[in-house]
Amino acid sequence: MLILCRQDITESQRWAVLDVAARAGFIAQVVGPRVIALFGDGDTRELSLLPCVAKIVDHEGELLFASRNGFRGTREVPAGPVTIGRGFTIIAGPCAVESREAILAAARTAKAAGVDLLRGGAYKPRTSPYSFQGLGRAGLGYLREAREETGLPVVTEVLDTDDIAAVAECADLLQVGTRNMANYALLKRVARAGRPVLLKRGMAATIAELLAAAEYLLVGGCPGVVLCERGIRTFSDETRFTLDLAAVPALRAATPWPVVVDPSHGTGIGAYVPALARAAAAAGAHGVMFEIHDHPEHALSDGQQAIAPEALPALVRDLRQIAGIARAAEGEKE
Amino acid sequence: MLILCRQDITESQRWAVLDVAARAGFIAQVVGPRVIALFGDGDTRELSLLPCVAKIVDHEGELLFASRNGFRGTREVPAGPVTIGRGFTIIAGPCAVESREAILAAARTAKAAGVDLLRGGAYKPRTSPYSFQGLGRAGLGYLREAREETGLPVVTEVLDTDDIAAVAECADLLQVGTRNMANYALLKRVARAGRPVLLKRGMAATIAELLAAAEYLLVGGCPGVVLCERGIRTFSDETRFTLDLAAVPALRAATPWPVVVDPSHGTGIGAYVPALARAAAAAGAHGVMFEIHDHPEHALSDGQQAIAPEALPALVRDLRQIAGIARAAEGEKE
Amino acid sequence: MLILCRQDITESQRWAVLDVAARAGFIAQVVGPRVIALFGDGDTRELSLLPCVAKIVDHEGELLFASRNGFRGTREVPAGPVTIGRGFTIIAGPCAVESREAILAAARTAKAAGVDLLRGGAYKPRTSPYSFQGLGRAGLGYLREAREETGLPVVTEVLDTDDIAAVAECADLLQVGTRNMANYALLKRVARAGRPVLLKRGMAATIAELLAAAEYLLVGGCPGVVLCERGIRTFSDETRFTLDLAAVPALRAATPWPVVVDPSHGTGIGAYVPALARAAAAAGAHGVMFEIHDHPEHALSDGQQAIAPEALPALVRDLRQIAGIARAAEGEKE
Amino acid sequence: MLILCRQDITESQRWAVLDVAARAGFIAQVVGPRVIALFGDGDTRELSLLPCVAKIVDHEGELLFASRNGFRGTREVPAGPVTIGRGFTIIAGPCAVESREAILAAARTAKAAGVDLLRGGAYKPRTSPYSFQGLGRAGLGYLREAREETGLPVVTEVLDTDDIAAVAECADLLQVGTRNMANYALLKRVARAGRPVLLKRGMAATIAELLAAAEYLLVGGCPGVVLCERGIRTFSDETRFTLDLAAVPALRAATPWPVVVDPSHGTGIGAYVPALARAAAAAGAHGVMFEIHDHPEHALSDGQQAIAPEALPALVRDLRQIAGIARAAEGEKE
Repeated sequence: MLILCRQDITESQRWAVLDVAARAGFIAQVVGPRVIALFGDGDTRELSLLPCVAKIVDHEGELLFASRNGFRGTREVPAGPVTIGRGFTIIAGPCAVESREAILAAARTAKAAGVDLLRGGAYKPRTSPYSFQGLGRAGLGYLREAREETGLPVVTEVLDTDDIAAVAECADLLQVGTRNMANYALLKRVARAGRPVLLKRGMAATIAELLAAAEYLLVGGCPGVVLCERGIRTFSDETRFTLDLAAVPALRAATPWPVVVDPSHGTGIGAYVPALARAAAAAGAHGVMFEIHDHPEHALSDGQQAIAPEALPALVRDLRQIAGIARAAEGEKE
Repeated sequence: MLILCRQDITESQRWAVLDVAARAGFIAQVVGPRVIALFGDGDTRELSLLPCVAKIVDHEGELLFASRNGFRGTREVPAGPVTIGRGFTIIAGPCAVESREAILAAARTAKAAGVDLLRGGAYKPRTSPYSFQGLGRAGLGYLREAREETGLPVVTEVLDTDDIAAVAECADLLQVGTRNMANYALLKRVARAGRPVLLKRGMAATIAELLAAAEYLLVGGCPGVVLCERGIRTFSDETRFTLDLAAVPALRAATPWPVVVDPSHGTGIGAYVPALARAAAAAGAHGVMFEIHDHPEHALSDGQQAIAPEALPALVRDLRQIAGIARAAEGEKE
Repeated sequence: MLILCRQDITESQRWAVLDVAARAGFIAQVVGPRVIALFGDGDTRELSLLPCVAKIVDHEGELLFASRNGFRGTREVPAGPVTIGRGFTIIAGPCAVESREAILAAARTAKAAGVDLLRGGAYKPRTSPYSFQGLGRAGLGYLREAREETGLPVVTEVLDTDDIAAVAECADLLQVGTRNMANYALLKRVARAGRPVLLKRGMAATIAELLAAAEYLLVGGCPGVVLCERGIRTFSDETRFTLDLAAVPALRAATPWPVVVDPSHGTGIGAYVPALARAAAAAGAHGVMFEIHDHPEHALSDGQQAIAPEALPALVRDLRQIAGIARAAEGEKE
Repeated sequence: MLILCRQDITESQRWAVLDVAARAGFIAQVVGPRVIALFGDGDTRELSLLPCVAKIVDHEGELLFASRNGFRGTREVPAGPVTIGRGFTIIAGPCAVESREAILAAARTAKAAGVDLLRGGAYKPRTSPYSFQGLGRAGLGYLREAREETGLPVVTEVLDTDDIAAVAECADLLQVGTRNMANYALLKRVARAGRPVLLKRGMAATIAELLAAAEYLLVGGCPGVVLCERGIRTFSDETRFTLDLAAVPALRAATPWPVVVDPSHGTGIGAYVPALARAAAAAGAHGVMFEIHDHPEHALSDGQQAIAPEALPALVRDLRQIAGIARAAEGEKE
């Protein structure tokens, strides 16, 4: 069972609820500012009389915040001056922030081509401890500079609970990556950072698990979530991952939160990125995120999956045109 | 090693080659009308002198017919009046031919909506022996009637070597299904039927294995192959299979033969089919194949993955528009 | 619905049933000598009165022959002098029959080490048309010789419906391989060959699909089926396939037919075969099948997954000892 | 490139190395107490002259600590009075610590049956935020009590960097779970806790990725690692995950660190656990970890995958017997 508390519940009232729940025979756990979960066979009568308790629901596994629950349309997620979920959002940038010069150049390229958000990792989760782990705080500074110069809002990944505040200061949208989708300790903290979050699907996560991870964020206080399909692990060895574009209509049916697709990580092959970015737009995604690199062959991480800047303007134009067709088609269907 | 024979090799010359090969210490196997494979450590001198032998190549696993081997552009595959690989080809129809009336109605709906080819199974591979296995010969007759009335060429599946001649008489394009992609006995016979083949990717096949299966057809005498991505088996349980759209640019890079996508089997969910058909067009596929059914809820097989006829005209229009954008983009890339 | 006919039904009675069914408004399909499936909304009254009809059941997808349906214990499958399902059966031999000498040598090695059945492919399904496809009829002859000399019964694969009679003449147990598990045309014919069948799990097949394929055989007249786990396609790239040993207890729970495991194809790495053969025995399998090769480095197919003959006697001893422990444990559980 | 520092390097010397590296044109990152990674094109001459630098190696992706690197045999990992990697180690206990009484009862059952280590989660990673997340600090206290009473060392999971010290105080072996295998922020901190770690394979991780995660621990200062196969995500829907027992010989070949198997999470089905625990022992694992629960039907998490206490003594006896056969077989091989 879940206790849904009133919006104005105070910290001391929450402690009182926990006390009453324990005396009533429950194991009680705070799930979010307004939600407490009860386990065991207790008696809810006294709890239901507390003034700070809005209602007690017999929860059967459904999600309170990440599911549609009857809501039609898309919940818009503001990221600085950009609103994800309104129109088609294009996020581009290098895999990692490699230097001040490189990220500034990428930001200018992106801006000139009509990209909406700048991506770039200051903290990089790498399979080997001996691979480049990102520039850290220095990288965050360069991202801030790029944002100031170009006006592009920034999305960047947070890996460590200790870095959340620093990343949140620089990023308009916090990214939780595929390796951390089920890092619930991180999700619980990121939820309290006051920033919307781009949540990548775990490479072995089902759609239901992705939505449950989003629920951790939303019940924990996160103001908005953007869900990102980025490829799953399969036997298919042609690409690094298998981009699951059926996740787009599936997520659109299940959740009101916007859905974006990352064909760079989803394939690992730059030459396939434009085709799959177009496919994502055609499938009804609210946006795409891909990597650009001025010199893919010199990238410190994942260079082979970036696309060259020259290809960007035509791709941006095609994506917006295809997204328009998809949007009209989805509208006709409703 | 492979012996490539001259185009005009006779049956008796072929026997002579096998004789010489055996005497020279090889195990020799006829792979196709013009290709003989040699195994073991023999001496090729005498073989190379035979007048019907064009050349002997030290084969290292590469495919002679299914790979690009330097060929740019697309090899066109005629299917009756339609040419697959030129423009964007839309194939639609019911999963199974269920009755004369149903397939005629579906053919008229398809024709009116601007579909290019009619699909429909007279022979159905079903997981359970107790499921409907198709109308067989009667179904082939109804397909022929539908073709005659509407002018739409027909693609239909062949399951059994004994049925190849009957199916080939009725079909403009023979389909080999996902369960039979690695049924090499069937491929070898279908290759000799004189019809182009739509070859579906095995649900656990890599791109390399799909191309090797196409090679069985092509080396065996098949005049043309259309490759079809139809979803692969993965852990993801939201859809029946995971449609691997990265296969589209991957196949386009690897082979000159046209590539089509089947989002009906690829997802198993009719509501997702339009989104993924659009995505296939955007990814650069040469066509799509999907299921339509007047009364999906009464279908004898796979009703839940068909789309309703009303949705067809708008979908056909969107697909052609998106395919145009993708084609222009691919052209710009070249 | 399914019509279950009496054991002594004649061909002309079967035609009569089909006639009555058609007149009653059904599409009727013969599934096996004694089973006819009905589709559509018809009236079963007249059918139920036919003397050759034992009963008409409202079939809801369950399997009549491949499931336990209340049967406890194991259905034994005789393969020449050996009974699979009683004790622990060890099947060994080369991947392919490569020459008369090689298969005779392998058979002697196997016999001396205490192996129960000889395996070896005369027909090989190969990914590339240019790979060695087996010795065919000649290979069958060498297998027959090996059987005569050593007394070991033989299991060998059949790929083509045209070869069933020839293979059945030589083999005590017909093998249907992983690529053909869902080749229903082949299953239907093999079912009528009068030989028990070793049916390998498709590399992308679920347990339910494997059992349904076994049902095709059993309803079609096959006297007995041995189910073989041989590895499935997954993302894991350490081994060629992922051997799914949970299939052993799962199959034992679901079906009375014996279960064997093939760790050679299941891993593709000879060095891992003994460990996984032992694991299969410990998991409760009724037997294992693995490859041996005198000179793995010279094998014409799959040499790297064979084990050397020297390792055989100790492995056979360990397997029988572990299988005894597992058998006792399973007995304690019952 | 990697700088390997002398064992006695001081903090200030490390800073000096970083200074010199930066001046020499490198991006330098501290990977562990004795290892610094260099990125970019710099000059190593001055660095190689520093007295605290042992050597500079041109690192090509190989692992320094997690790979065999020529070491034969097994690196033993002490966990309290038990040594993992010597003999066969049996780890059992409930999924979660649910109450003081329950964990004490489980510990007594385990001790009496001859189990070596007690498992039980005080912190539980759950897919839904509304599922029971464990008793936290209180749970750790109960585990400590169980250890004191029975003498069984304890393995328990750590999820959050903030809890590492508290968990390390109570646990003889820290567990990093499947969802956190690639949570590198956690691995880097856990490495410094001074405790050996049981590292579970990520449900979508390759063997190479598991070893690279172990390398994060070992280069970071962790005294010893036990690798745990616990099932991977595949299409196979019979069990919750697919237990990949080929990982056992694969890991034994690649690393000297001990390998254990968790058939409870690997299948999610208690009835299959004994069969797969035996299989793990037969495959050469150094131990198994499985769940027991007095009342599986009342478990707050994962009850359906636990085995009943009555089955424990016979299972423990079988496991030790089979492990003995496997150990002898592996010895014969060497």
